[in-house]
Amino acid sequence: MERVGYYNGEMGPLDELKVPFQDRVSFYGDGVYDATMARDGVIVYLEDHMDRFYNSMRTMRFEPNFTREELCAEIQKVVDAADPVDNFVYWQVTRGTALRQHHFADVEPNLWIMVFPMAFSDLSTTEDAVSFEDKRYSYCNVKTVNLLPNVLAAQYAAEHGCEEAILVRDGYVTESMHSNVHILKDGVLITHPADEHILPGISRKHIISMCGTLGIPVEERLYTLDELKAADEVLISSCCTFAIRVAHVDGEPVGGKDPETFTRLANALEQEFADYVEANRR
Amino acid sequence: MERVGYYNGEMGPLDELKVPFQDRVSFYGDGVYDATMARDGVIVYLEDHMDRFYNSMRTMRFEPNFTREELCAEIQKVVDAADPVDNFVYWQVTRGTALRQHHFADVEPNLWIMVFPMAFSDLSTTEDAVSFEDKRYSYCNVKTVNLLPNVLAAQYAAEHGCEEAILVRDGYVTESMHSNVHILKDGVLITHPADEHILPGISRKHIISMCGTLGIPVEERLYTLDELKAADEVLISSCCTFAIRVAHVDGEPVGGKDPETFTRLANALEQEFADYVEANRR
Repeated sequence: MERVGYYNGEMGPLDELKVPFQDRVSFYGDGVYDATMARDGVIVYLEDHMDRFYNSMRTMRFEPNFTREELCAEIQKVVDAADPVDNFVYWQVTRGTALRQHHFADVEPNLWIMVFPMAFSDLSTTEDAVSFEDKRYSYCNVKTVNLLPNVLAAQYAAEHGCEEAILVRDGYVTESMHSNVHILKDGVLITHPADEHILPGISRKHIISMCGTLGIPVEERLYTLDELKAADEVLISSCCTFAIRVAHVDGEPVGGKDPETFTRLANALEQEFADYVEANRR
Repeated sequence: MERVGYYNGEMGPLDELKVPFQDRVSFYGDGVYDATMARDGVIVYLEDHMDRFYNSMRTMRFEPNFTREELCAEIQKVVDAADPVDNFVYWQVTRGTALRQHHFADVEPNLWIMVFPMAFSDLSTTEDAVSFEDKRYSYCNVKTVNLLPNVLAAQYAAEHGCEEAILVRDGYVTESMHSNVHILKDGVLITHPADEHILPGISRKHIISMCGTLGIPVEERLYTLDELKAADEVLISSCCTFAIRVAHVDGEPVGGKDPETFTRLANALEQEFADYVEANRR
């Protein structure tokens, strides 16, 4: 199948699958998720994503009715049912199906999985971005489906012909609407601290780790939009984009002043990914 | 039927209704809603709720594929299909069904309606509350289904044997997780300003208006949790609770020092409601 959906053990074509009206996601966005990519059936950095997913469940007080091993096996089943191309792999748990009431109901959680084709970003290309006010809640370290502010930001970016919306909270850059943002300045990688205002991205984690390997100093600290605009390079990272450069923000050219450091980092991240896929090939 | 559901024109028992897996509400909480009560088939303060619902749609950039009159007619149809008891009436619009991507898709919105039995609060009783940190986004003036922080607050309240969680942001009381909060002090009603941190409740609007009629001064201003605890009365209002007193916050007794002003207000609100139902009886 090209696009595969899964709901509580039922698997089928994504476009045809149905779920109960009263899944609590419908009324409260009462779900947490995680997502990554798969190449040749290998789910990329699965353990990292599972660590984060379990943290999301703990923080938002979801009680899984499956073990981590069972969850991984179910996700793999859906990946294996999908066409053998590069795929986006998404799973979420919602807090069961019940008559609408705010507090938890005494019901089992629901497990959703979907897999559909998506390409990894070509790291030699660039993206454009707009800045957008960050009015999100203070649970941004958790992957919940309360993403309406992100939707508004993404639409604003699309309407301006851009791929990214760089969110600015109280003057400081937090992240993009579905990516982390980093800057390179004088050979140092600067990135927002992993607090309640950004998602601790898996690619972000690999970037920081790889910087250590390559001898690129890292500063986890707040930085302003002006600092970003004056940086040597502006980088975006997400699960399908290990690190890509931003060429324009709000129509102004940015970055492009330290392609060497960027390329060294990007090549190393791509090699790490290729090694991971080889090591985990089944 | 006791509990009636409706999705894009399909109506049936709420517990049996299904919706597409890929309704964007599932991945982004990409929906806005409104809710009220119905007595004898009369939808309470419908025009007020419609005004707010259209404002929610505008703010969150939903483009309805129905007129206001058509929407009201569809909601009335579901109310009429439900048992003739006091009912909760809920409707929402979600941003269509599409493959997951953050920005808007070129698809029609989906209309959801549900009606099920719910009792109006007895205004002579009291409720208990806990305080809870308000970490919500700055779109609280809009009724979206991004309500996971409210769910956590409600669960915390329930675990402490309370009906309400009074949210506190930067030291100031904003509202409860599904109600507005007001205090009476020295004969004055004090309530949080209608900004981006609270929902402009319909009952709140009627309270402010009724205070004008009764000669009770109103101050729309910030107040702290300490001020609330020292107030003469602490009031909660929502669509099924025109105004009810809080007796305890965090286990400490509160209010109870100006029952006369409260009762005068509550009686007037109940009379206004009764008059509305009579005037709109069909």
